[in-house]
Amino acid sequence: MFTYDMSKAGSESLYHYLYQCIRKDILSKRLESDSRLPSKRSLAQNLGVSVVTVENAYAQLLAEGYIYSLPKKGFYIAQIQAPAQTARTAAPAKRPLKSAHRHAPNDEPESLDPKYIADFASNAADLESFPFSTWAKITREILCERQADLLRVSPSEGIFELRRAIAHMLLEFRNIRVEPSQIVIGAGTDILYGLLLQLLGFDKCYAVEDPGYSKISKLYSQYNVDFCYIPVSAKSFVDELEKSAADVVHLSPSHHFPTGKVMPIAERYRLLSWATASPNRYIIEDDYDSEFRMSGSPIPALQNIDVLDKVIYLNTFSKTMTSTIRLSYMVLPKPLAKKFHEELSFYSCTVSNLDQYAMARFMEGGFYETHINRTRNLYRAKRDALLKAIQKSKLSKLATIYEEDAGLHFILGVDTDLSDAEFCKKAEAKGVRIRALSEYYFEAEPSLHKFIVNYSSVEKDSMPRAVQVLSSIVG
Amino acid sequence: MFTYDMSKAGSESLYHYLYQCIRKDILSKRLESDSRLPSKRSLAQNLGVSVVTVENAYAQLLAEGYIYSLPKKGFYIAQIQAPAQTARTAAPAKRPLKSAHRHAPNDEPESLDPKYIADFASNAADLESFPFSTWAKITREILCERQADLLRVSPSEGIFELRRAIAHMLLEFRNIRVEPSQIVIGAGTDILYGLLLQLLGFDKCYAVEDPGYSKISKLYSQYNVDFCYIPVSAKSFVDELEKSAADVVHLSPSHHFPTGKVMPIAERYRLLSWATASPNRYIIEDDYDSEFRMSGSPIPALQNIDVLDKVIYLNTFSKTMTSTIRLSYMVLPKPLAKKFHEELSFYSCTVSNLDQYAMARFMEGGFYETHINRTRNLYRAKRDALLKAIQKSKLSKLATIYEEDAGLHFILGVDTDLSDAEFCKKAEAKGVRIRALSEYYFEAEPSLHKFIVNYSSVEKDSMPRAVQVLSSIVG
Repeated sequence: MFTYDMSKAGSESLYHYLYQCIRKDILSKRLESDSRLPSKRSLAQNLGVSVVTVENAYAQLLAEGYIYSLPKKGFYIAQIQAPAQTARTAAPAKRPLKSAHRHAPNDEPESLDPKYIADFASNAADLESFPFSTWAKITREILCERQADLLRVSPSEGIFELRRAIAHMLLEFRNIRVEPSQIVIGAGTDILYGLLLQLLGFDKCYAVEDPGYSKISKLYSQYNVDFCYIPVSAKSFVDELEKSAADVVHLSPSHHFPTGKVMPIAERYRLLSWATASPNRYIIEDDYDSEFRMSGSPIPALQNIDVLDKVIYLNTFSKTMTSTIRLSYMVLPKPLAKKFHEELSFYSCTVSNLDQYAMARFMEGGFYETHINRTRNLYRAKRDALLKAIQKSKLSKLATIYEEDAGLHFILGVDTDLSDAEFCKKAEAKGVRIRALSEYYFEAEPSLHKFIVNYSSVEKDSMPRAVQVLSSIVG
Repeated sequence: MFTYDMSKAGSESLYHYLYQCIRKDILSKRLESDSRLPSKRSLAQNLGVSVVTVENAYAQLLAEGYIYSLPKKGFYIAQIQAPAQTARTAAPAKRPLKSAHRHAPNDEPESLDPKYIADFASNAADLESFPFSTWAKITREILCERQADLLRVSPSEGIFELRRAIAHMLLEFRNIRVEPSQIVIGAGTDILYGLLLQLLGFDKCYAVEDPGYSKISKLYSQYNVDFCYIPVSAKSFVDELEKSAADVVHLSPSHHFPTGKVMPIAERYRLLSWATASPNRYIIEDDYDSEFRMSGSPIPALQNIDVLDKVIYLNTFSKTMTSTIRLSYMVLPKPLAKKFHEELSFYSCTVSNLDQYAMARFMEGGFYETHINRTRNLYRAKRDALLKAIQKSKLSKLATIYEEDAGLHFILGVDTDLSDAEFCKKAEAKGVRIRALSEYYFEAEPSLHKFIVNYSSVEKDSMPRAVQVLSSIVG
């Protein structure tokens, strides 16, 4: 390792060649996550290049999120998810707690309120992390260069360039192999659910997870469509599903919101088998925050093991970019894609051409990958700061952190006599907004004294104060 | 007239003061449409200012579309719609034919195809007319100045600034007085129809116009909702409506697509009276191209004469800007707006914040008004060129132009033995795409040998050749 033949750099700049070599080794997992890189001086000596060359290569890797630095310790390999199939689990040295981290699913309309010390109820993206300058530059370029295309009506399913970029990304990051013609772009997952209802039928019964995201059942109930709740905490989700009248099941098997559960592989196969029992049965897989898995074995998408065209894969750019650019997509099995083109393509695409072309270029230019890597590191640093603040406070003795293997939130179990509502009310009165897990239950027996900690929008500096507030309520 | 007191210009530049004075007289109709302005020299002399001052004022008025110029003749007052209530009808001198002009309604997914000499089937906007540089500038400004707002989740009904700008415009251009809280923004009218179905009920029967825009009935049929057709050519539309089981009627009373009919005022009152007979009854008024009425008395919106909260007003920026920015809106009567906020505000707004803020600034900065004036003049010039080309060709003896009082298309009645399908096929084979009126009928007896001429996207230079093609088929 680190024995690159620098004479092969050719016409390329040395630093860029070195950056590429190390990047390749990180992506192929030849370099292990959280292992330390050689010091700049020693690597420069070994390779026979100047220290500045190594410095520049490291700076580039750092900027793009492939490596991270620890003060006075040096540079370490970041945990990179791509290609997902070979990612390794390794908790970085000195991390105080290995923990669950996940955030609320798509499109929840919540906003940051400056009056809070910390708003753990908001799943908004970090304000600082949005790549405004790149996005503005690309938007400008598109407005200059693609004027005729900007006025040409988009196909109902979205502009080809964006669907191609998404297909490419799905292959690279999730090892999902699909054709651009299977992809449908929509202005948010609400829109896609609405299209799916028309595609799968208003006469079907839709199963949703309990606890879960209330928006989905609200939507089904608005459309006067039959739906039922399936308890996530049941011994077997699929057993409960079998007992129900459901034709279509809506779930997030890789990381359930809000509990953070991961559906075991055996259950996944049983789920696919459930779907084959009737031509009406389908699985809607919402893979909403797969980009932010920071540790744990990669969970293959259901779509990945589906060979019978039963899985509809759904995802969004709300989490990775911002929910205020309205951009979600679904991947339809080929027979359903055909049906979509025959029956639903009279609808206009709901996303503006400018947003579609900008996102396509953002992805094709490699900016999306860079951005994901950077924000993953940012959120990891936030998580670590929060966990450290908890560990340092008396809260550490009164609370348990549930380490479900998830995205941008974790569950905080608290030893308290207060009701969940009282706890949240007291916290809010003291400037910390937080929501109880029990709020997300519909019919199942709720799990009490557990709270959802979304940390993505919370400033690191506010975390010790926020933890102090929570401690004062418990103690 | 033209006797302005230039000493009142104060600190303003003289040319800008003069521009404002003339603009005011044009908008107040003190200056009549199509009347000639004094020559620059004579006005300069009368007002005691330099010719350059008058030149600059005229240039500004010309650029913004308040006046137009005829080569070697001078400057004339353009036909301006605002304020709509006092607009005058006056055919400009030397216009060969007074004619209907209207275009297909919202969101039809059609695109320009370079292989055609002329595509009269496309209702796309003129490629050259989109204000790219202003739009790009505003987009850049928003990306720089409103970063925190861009990441703050929009309310379900849309961002306040845009709803305020729309309310202001509706008052100014259509004399419709509404509160921003009654307005709901959506990524296209499809989205708004979907929301209205949820608001008014899936159990209602929806009436649509026959002939009409097939998308609307396709949508109702996708949702398995009862709907019926009401013949537009009937002696009384409302009589037919009374005979039907309809609860909700969907129509464009100010200018029906595709026939170009205008609903007489007596029928309008009867329609409102029909709606009062049951609390379930509502009128969906699609006012899709009211901005492009170029002549004829202004038709007040139904919304304007509704005092019983029965009219839902719908419009879009697809025609005035481009359908590839997905921006439509509806105005709900206050009780329905309340219901929307209570029951449907869990949905995410479907338009990106950037598009919403950009459009709000575009309107508030006066650019929208300027743009509408400019494109109205552009389309008028296109219409005139096309009518002139027809008049000059032998087609003038074999065809009738139906002068319905409408937007960006007219109806061409042709004296031919060919079937409508044969006519369109022959035209297409020779490079002219055109659609028959009869294609838009559902159950009613179609009116034959009539064709819809959308001229908005056709180049002026291609028009003589296109007319020649049509002539050769008829003759």
